[in-house]
Amino acid sequence: MKVYLAGPDVFLPDADGMGKRKREICATYGLTGLFPLDNEIATDALPTSARIFHANTALMRQADAIIANLTPFRGPSADSGTVYELGYMAGTGKLCAGYSNVPHSYRDKVPTEPVSGGSHDAHGMLIEDFGLADNLMIVHALDMFGIPLILPRSPVSDPFRDLEGFEACVRLLTEHAMK
Amino acid sequence: MKVYLAGPDVFLPDADGMGKRKREICATYGLTGLFPLDNEIATDALPTSARIFHANTALMRQADAIIANLTPFRGPSADSGTVYELGYMAGTGKLCAGYSNVPHSYRDKVPTEPVSGGSHDAHGMLIEDFGLADNLMIVHALDMFGIPLILPRSPVSDPFRDLEGFEACVRLLTEHAMK
Repeated sequence: MKVYLAGPDVFLPDADGMGKRKREICATYGLTGLFPLDNEIATDALPTSARIFHANTALMRQADAIIANLTPFRGPSADSGTVYELGYMAGTGKLCAGYSNVPHSYRDKVPTEPVSGGSHDAHGMLIEDFGLADNLMIVHALDMFGIPLILPRSPVSDPFRDLEGFEACVRLLTEHAMK
Repeated sequence: MKVYLAGPDVFLPDADGMGKRKREICATYGLTGLFPLDNEIATDALPTSARIFHANTALMRQADAIIANLTPFRGPSADSGTVYELGYMAGTGKLCAGYSNVPHSYRDKVPTEPVSGGSHDAHGMLIEDFGLADNLMIVHALDMFGIPLILPRSPVSDPFRDLEGFEACVRLLTEHAMK
């Protein structure tokens, strides 16, 4: 099984090292990890960002499944590129898995406007409050199109590098594929 | 053409009114707008959040296209639920359109860590710097699977309610469909 390894990991200073560690964990379980930075970027006339888009899309099309690192990134939600990729893989009918290294509910990660009694943010926008770790579309996509979101029991010390949740996803995908 | 109307609009205090305005603009151009709050939520045993997920997914499957409101929401990127839906529609091969009411580049919306010379954030994570308004996967998905992201020439006074970019998407989808 080929697994697309989505996440803000590509923005780490040691992104290549993280890709290598994730591929090694996949290999331990007999899976092939496809990390975005591993792909061949075409050398055509398109802007670099468009070439990266095409290369990542080609990797997703090759993959049978996705493991999305949904750890909150620059706000209460997951990295937006990762969320796009999760949606894309769900839309193409691939198997979806994901983990976040922050166990708190979405509600608890959004600064609230006290006047609203805590139900709304400073812009007067309602804060989703279903006890889920991120927007309901993301969390239930995992429930419906793969395996439920993996969360740590307590906060981890290095949320952008901890791979326990990732390994749990790999293990569960392997078990799912054997059913 | 049925168009799924994705966006953080559903979190506005006057969400129903916004849905009505968007559907009316669609109707002016001969399109049918499908707004998430219009759908019938099943009354089965599932939790409310899962029923909303299923209802939204059913609306997306009915739709021929999506117009995603990608105005930054609780951070430098678009609302994560909206981004998931954009990815899902791209994955199912539907026509994709989107607008943001904030014209600035992603790079300019992320607080930087001065020591890095402005290339990295406070967590040491690289800040994407391609001059795009959001993550490259989102912006190029629109280029490749529909019409390019619509941005205002200058900041608008009420980014969560301004519908000029939305109307531009409706008009361009109509023209695209006639090609």
